Amino acid sequence: VEDEAPFGPLIWKRGALLLLDQTLLPGEVKWRSCATAEDVAQAIAERRVRGATAVAIAAAYGVALAARQRVGEAGSARLMQNAVEEAVEKMRRATPASSHVFMALAQVRDAARVSVETADAFMVADAVEARARAVHAEDVARCQRLGSAGAELIADGATVLTLGNYGALATGGWGTSLGVLRSAWRSCRRARVIVCESRPLLDGARLTAWELERDGFDVTVIPDGAAHGLLQRREVSMVLLGADRVSGDGDVVGELGGYGVALAAAAAAVPVVVAAIAACIDPAMSLDVGAVSPAVLRAAATPPFGVPERVALRCPGGDVIPGALIGAIVTERGVHRPPWPTSLRS
Amino acid sequence: VEDEAPFGPLIWKRGALLLLDQTLLPGEVKWRSCATAEDVAQAIAERRVRGATAVAIAAAYGVALAARQRVGEAGSARLMQNAVEEAVEKMRRATPASSHVFMALAQVRDAARVSVETADAFMVADAVEARARAVHAEDVARCQRLGSAGAELIADGATVLTLGNYGALATGGWGTSLGVLRSAWRSCRRARVIVCESRPLLDGARLTAWELERDGFDVTVIPDGAAHGLLQRREVSMVLLGADRVSGDGDVVGELGGYGVALAAAAAAVPVVVAAIAACIDPAMSLDVGAVSPAVLRAAATPPFGVPERVALRCPGGDVIPGALIGAIVTERGVHRPPWPTSLRS
Repeated sequence: VEDEAPFGPLIWKRGALLLLDQTLLPGEVKWRSCATAEDVAQAIAERRVRGATAVAIAAAYGVALAARQRVGEAGSARLMQNAVEEAVEKMRRATPASSHVFMALAQVRDAARVSVETADAFMVADAVEARARAVHAEDVARCQRLGSAGAELIADGATVLTLGNYGALATGGWGTSLGVLRSAWRSCRRARVIVCESRPLLDGARLTAWELERDGFDVTVIPDGAAHGLLQRREVSMVLLGADRVSGDGDVVGELGGYGVALAAAAAAVPVVVAAIAACIDPAMSLDVGAVSPAVLRAAATPPFGVPERVALRCPGGDVIPGALIGAIVTERGVHRPPWPTSLRS
Repeated sequence: VEDEAPFGPLIWKRGALLLLDQTLLPGEVKWRSCATAEDVAQAIAERRVRGATAVAIAAAYGVALAARQRVGEAGSARLMQNAVEEAVEKMRRATPASSHVFMALAQVRDAARVSVETADAFMVADAVEARARAVHAEDVARCQRLGSAGAELIADGATVLTLGNYGALATGGWGTSLGVLRSAWRSCRRARVIVCESRPLLDGARLTAWELERDGFDVTVIPDGAAHGLLQRREVSMVLLGADRVSGDGDVVGELGGYGVALAAAAAAVPVVVAAIAACIDPAMSLDVGAVSPAVLRAAATPPFGVPERVALRCPGGDVIPGALIGAIVTERGVHRPPWPTSLRS
């Protein structure tokens, strides 16, 4: 990614990966330098980089760093290919399973499969690094195409309610739902943004508010429980959500709270727009949302607002919004509208 | 209130008022002794006692303390009556306006209006103190009548979702919505309770979880945004909410988040029950919910989950749930059912 690239949470710089430490936001803006694949794996485990796409790109760069580390000892192209295969397996194990990660790792593994007759270890490592950078650049370009497609749905002066963080910080840069707002702004359609704080991890209050404020947006943070009343009082003109997965029927798995917001939007006849890269659409997907671990919840419920020690904590990992509540799904291919089964196939 | 009285946040003990400091819960259980009306006013201002009914009882005790302070100097019954009137005005100014406070203060003021021919200052002070204790005891008895009426709606083994704190801590003891659960338990109908953490002030996570756990309930705390998905997946058999005010049409003003939860309950055909003392029902009431002050919000958004400095925070003071989404309203007079205009008048 070039210097003029839009802001994102990963920078590849002279053979090292700089990661914006998202655990310290919004209080501290600190870039963490990863010189080895192990550094990257640790940063992923500690959630210093988060968001399925950003994690996938980090994993691809991790493989490139592993190749670079081994280039002196590996000698031949074939040995380097083996080293790359090992690194791919290592990053896969170090990373939460997602189709984004599988695809990104498949790409860097394939890049290493050059002809072992004509190439040496350096050439293989170069090819892997180039492919990791391409995975990153392609994601930014894809988000920008998605943003341009979605921008037409944003009226100038709209008040847009959003949840969680599906922004530059969750991707290579630009973002999906927040990318739509950025693209709209670039075409002079400025939205006021209301963001739910998005418990338990407060990705809305900490990350979305930070990255939108950084770009000059008018942002207001509300508690999650306030969203429905704002919709009821018609103080929101559009709900714009990101997605982790989309079924063939337009059912959307995404940030916790999305279902309640979509219900309130439907009751108020406010349109719900979902932004997701096309690879998130999977006709065969499960709608399982998993769960946030009790340890993560306990840590999120810090003093002075602690929960009594003996009380159980529980949190699903996300929400499922039925396709019937969604007005449009935007991907890099364009704006999809119901009926979903036909629309999402195109 | 006698020793065998149920647990509550206020104890009158040898001419002093002990208040459970709710700002320290759940981490620390500390009773604060108020020897003067000024102590009580300060505790109210600092939200150490909260909940409209608990605050009203504290204000009545504040007047009793003021009368006791002046009993030596006041001399005559008439001078003491003047002192009581002054103290009532002072407590009224020190207390957020609510019908509960107006009624409680009117009661202690009326108690001072004994015959000045036959009474002395001590007798007036005694009458005021007795009335303050009666205001307290009557509230507990009212909550227990409400609880008994509502208990019939709780099936043994039910999973009940609740919001905020309308419990013992918000009243003289027992509570309204949580009083229903206590009364049900006493008649051997035990509910599992899921409580929304209830941002911004976390009254659910901090207070409701604490007081229910103290009484042996099976309690689970969830983030506010998780409630709708639990209802969608039919993991909740009943929604039980408290109320600040109820209109003649059954519209309910209560804790933030109640509207979204009621919408999700309606979509899942899960009944919504509201508990409120009959004095909360006001055919002429406004549905204005006010707002939480930005300073309170900023304080509630503590590090490490801070919101960026330049980002606006906003929070309505509560939610309005349309009567059409509510299945039953329980008061100390019994269980009311739609149609509301006729039902709530009886």
